[in-house]
Amino acid sequence: MSRIEKLLEEMGLPLPLPKAPVANYQGTKRCGNVLYVSGRVSEAQGVVGFDIDEEQAKLAARDTMLDLLAIVKLDIGNLDKIVSIISMQGFVNSNSSFKTLPQVIDGASDLLISLYGESGKHARTATGIAQLPYGACIQISMVVELENS
Amino acid sequence: MSRIEKLLEEMGLPLPLPKAPVANYQGTKRCGNVLYVSGRVSEAQGVVGFDIDEEQAKLAARDTMLDLLAIVKLDIGNLDKIVSIISMQGFVNSNSSFKTLPQVIDGASDLLISLYGESGKHARTATGIAQLPYGACIQISMVVELENS
Amino acid sequence: MSRIEKLLEEMGLPLPLPKAPVANYQGTKRCGNVLYVSGRVSEAQGVVGFDIDEEQAKLAARDTMLDLLAIVKLDIGNLDKIVSIISMQGFVNSNSSFKTLPQVIDGASDLLISLYGESGKHARTATGIAQLPYGACIQISMVVELENS
Repeated sequence: MSRIEKLLEEMGLPLPLPKAPVANYQGTKRCGNVLYVSGRVSEAQGVVGFDIDEEQAKLAARDTMLDLLAIVKLDIGNLDKIVSIISMQGFVNSNSSFKTLPQVIDGASDLLISLYGESGKHARTATGIAQLPYGACIQISMVVELENS
Repeated sequence: MSRIEKLLEEMGLPLPLPKAPVANYQGTKRCGNVLYVSGRVSEAQGVVGFDIDEEQAKLAARDTMLDLLAIVKLDIGNLDKIVSIISMQGFVNSNSSFKTLPQVIDGASDLLISLYGESGKHARTATGIAQLPYGACIQISMVVELENS
Repeated sequence: MSRIEKLLEEMGLPLPLPKAPVANYQGTKRCGNVLYVSGRVSEAQGVVGFDIDEEQAKLAARDTMLDLLAIVKLDIGNLDKIVSIISMQGFVNSNSSFKTLPQVIDGASDLLISLYGESGKHARTATGIAQLPYGACIQISMVVELENS
């Protein structure tokens, strides 16, 4: 078991089974040492600040990141091959009365920084959105750097 | 005529005339072997699931990708220089009752995979949006890898 | 003082104090010679085309770019190290009756091109959005290329 997966186990957050892309694209695509990870939506549905609250949405962001990591593991074999998290884009299904989107997406960022430490710190954009695929409340994509192969 | 343009002709989808950027930016920008292609909106207007249906929107996504390819050809000279499609971001102008956004953006992804095969498979994020420039129903940007120059 | 900061002074647009990220992410992240700059929202709030007009929003986009440059300077030490602007993503908090989003984001693009000339020209995507963090009217992120270090 990889170092990162051991950490996840210790945190009580075992990697979920990877979920296949829902349409005609790949979960990840590599270019040189950079891996682009496709946007994935949360299983949790609803509008943050209306159907679900900030704390629930933050957990949904964390769980979405676990799904992204499961897909990355499937595609590259071992999460220890990630040497740095470069950037993340988070969308939050929210209405105009909900304004603390960055705190919601911290659910995903906190997890990466717990796992990868200083190298896990990343650039990020968090944005509110009217409608995500399948009515999900969170969507996250990211770009990571891999070790030389 | 390039191999890719020959394929497009055979599919009955000749490359349209390239359209100039509508404001102060470039259609593409190169960094090393990576080409960043600016977001382009569809000529088709309206809210998917309200003004136009899924099938019409999927065709709009395909036609938007043809416009992107026309711009890429203008800037790099030959579409055969693309060795890989890295990532795509698709926005769909939609209301909260429309949830199959990934199927709409497949209109663009299907075309790329028909043209570039295994190398055409890419990472992707599809997101619903309240308002696109000029009331368009689709907006697509992408990142591609070019051969060494 | 760097060449770029001298230009900013001459334009009457001195670099503002850098603002810390509002949640658990970094203002920038470097990967090779590419610097990813996190999304930053404008201090100006409101819905463009409702609370504030196109000209005010364009100034907000310019001021947001000044904030991004201040963060970049903090992280890399000198804005002259930027050799090229690669891409920009702009979100505009707007309602469905406002359609000239590209002109708003030109506020940021115009500034970069004034500063960096031909190298400042970039790929770009401008998109309308229902809700930005803290009710801001503009959000901008970018990717730039740095000189060899």
